[in-house]
Amino acid sequence: MEKIVRFGVSIEPELLERFDALIHAEGYGNRSEAIRDLIRKRLVEAETEEGRGTVAATITFLYDHHSSDLVNSLISIQHEAPVDIKASTHVHLTHDLCMEVISCIGEAREARRLGDRIKSLRGVLFAETVYTTPEVFGKEPHKH
Amino acid sequence: MEKIVRFGVSIEPELLERFDALIHAEGYGNRSEAIRDLIRKRLVEAETEEGRGTVAATITFLYDHHSSDLVNSLISIQHEAPVDIKASTHVHLTHDLCMEVISCIGEAREARRLGDRIKSLRGVLFAETVYTTPEVFGKEPHKH
Amino acid sequence: MEKIVRFGVSIEPELLERFDALIHAEGYGNRSEAIRDLIRKRLVEAETEEGRGTVAATITFLYDHHSSDLVNSLISIQHEAPVDIKASTHVHLTHDLCMEVISCIGEAREARRLGDRIKSLRGVLFAETVYTTPEVFGKEPHKH
Amino acid sequence: MEKIVRFGVSIEPELLERFDALIHAEGYGNRSEAIRDLIRKRLVEAETEEGRGTVAATITFLYDHHSSDLVNSLISIQHEAPVDIKASTHVHLTHDLCMEVISCIGEAREARRLGDRIKSLRGVLFAETVYTTPEVFGKEPHKH
Repeated sequence: MEKIVRFGVSIEPELLERFDALIHAEGYGNRSEAIRDLIRKRLVEAETEEGRGTVAATITFLYDHHSSDLVNSLISIQHEAPVDIKASTHVHLTHDLCMEVISCIGEAREARRLGDRIKSLRGVLFAETVYTTPEVFGKEPHKH
Repeated sequence: MEKIVRFGVSIEPELLERFDALIHAEGYGNRSEAIRDLIRKRLVEAETEEGRGTVAATITFLYDHHSSDLVNSLISIQHEAPVDIKASTHVHLTHDLCMEVISCIGEAREARRLGDRIKSLRGVLFAETVYTTPEVFGKEPHKH
Repeated sequence: MEKIVRFGVSIEPELLERFDALIHAEGYGNRSEAIRDLIRKRLVEAETEEGRGTVAATITFLYDHHSSDLVNSLISIQHEAPVDIKASTHVHLTHDLCMEVISCIGEAREARRLGDRIKSLRGVLFAETVYTTPEVFGKEPHKH
Repeated sequence: MEKIVRFGVSIEPELLERFDALIHAEGYGNRSEAIRDLIRKRLVEAETEEGRGTVAATITFLYDHHSSDLVNSLISIQHEAPVDIKASTHVHLTHDLCMEVISCIGEAREARRLGDRIKSLRGVLFAETVYTTPEVFGKEPHKH
């Protein structure tokens, strides 16, 4: 069982009221959960802002599958990238357009570089990377 | 075949030099491609900043699969959400931790709401949504 | 005197340790203060993301003061804008380049529009707007 | 007189049409100017994302001037910071609340640190920093 500690926060009542209204609208059942989410988000930001550390990342991109050689280039780039690509999911958006999401683990800097490489390919119309950091959540990654 | 037009841009030579150096480092083979990417990114931003319009979105989240009932809640929320969920991909990060990415199409506002609901669940440690807008790329969505 | 309430947060000890390290490095003397900052930042985000509500904003921009008529256009735009411009500060960065910051109060949407207008002027090289929302801090604005 | 070069961009007509509509709404009189703005914004992002390089920055913050000793702490922190603070502008928002914007030049990392220190002070309710990089605009800073 996981250990839990408790700490107190002093706050102006009006500010707390507004926060409670917001998190209620977002679906939180519990104020602690909302505060922990803010803490984790801030830690992920601080951890990844200088490209250091290990991240679990997803790279979302859109492309036109008719672009010549694009599909092959996408595969080669993924095979050569010095990150551990866990999965990639493909969605057919339109007759021409595909959305793909790659999930990977690796150095923040390398995950960013992979996102840059993909974005720069002719026929890739959009790419954006989400970084998260399993380590900052007090969980050791990679141990099955 | 797709029609292509061409327009000219006036620019200070030093600025162009710096831009060329950056996009070369990112892997672009071609200046037009880099400019089109900037244009598409700006259009997606403008299109989604007020929650209007149809988006293709991915929601990346991390969770502890031991949290009681979390897996069931995640499934119900997805079934009830008024967006078209195309796929969800699951990655085992650690003994406790899972990363999941949902790909969906729908109203920007509803995609955001789905991301909020997921983020607010007890046991979900992090959630972030990427929005993109197939329509602004001059492709009609949904027609197979 | 201002009333203060107190609430408790349950959290994993490792997560709290990491948060304490971060906020110590940032200079916080006090955990409550750091949590209140996260709450306020989240409220400002939620409040401004759809362009609604009253904001206090600053618009930072860079321009080349040699651009013909730019200085006059900047002044006219500010006089016509339906926001209350409180002050503007000018800094000489280089022989050619000025940085200016406008502080204003008004509708979020109008403050954004003013930033857009300024950014679009020939000779303005960069513009970015910071939004903040005095109301969400439990303080009534504009009453001297 | 400044030298100007010209380059061509190939693009789908629908995409160009959408871009023209957006920049017209933002107030641009000229497509080149809008493209140059996108290029400069991207260069500033790339330049500052790892905390390297010299920036001109503004730090916007809100505070309650009744907080004991806050005003003195703000002044000491500014005097000690290893950045060149050019100006600070003060706006009275409400009976209690002040907005202040500091304009400074220095290492990106140090400007960020100054923003962190200010944000962490008791009584400071919100702080956000805008970074810009005069050098990437082909202008040499600091030479009057």
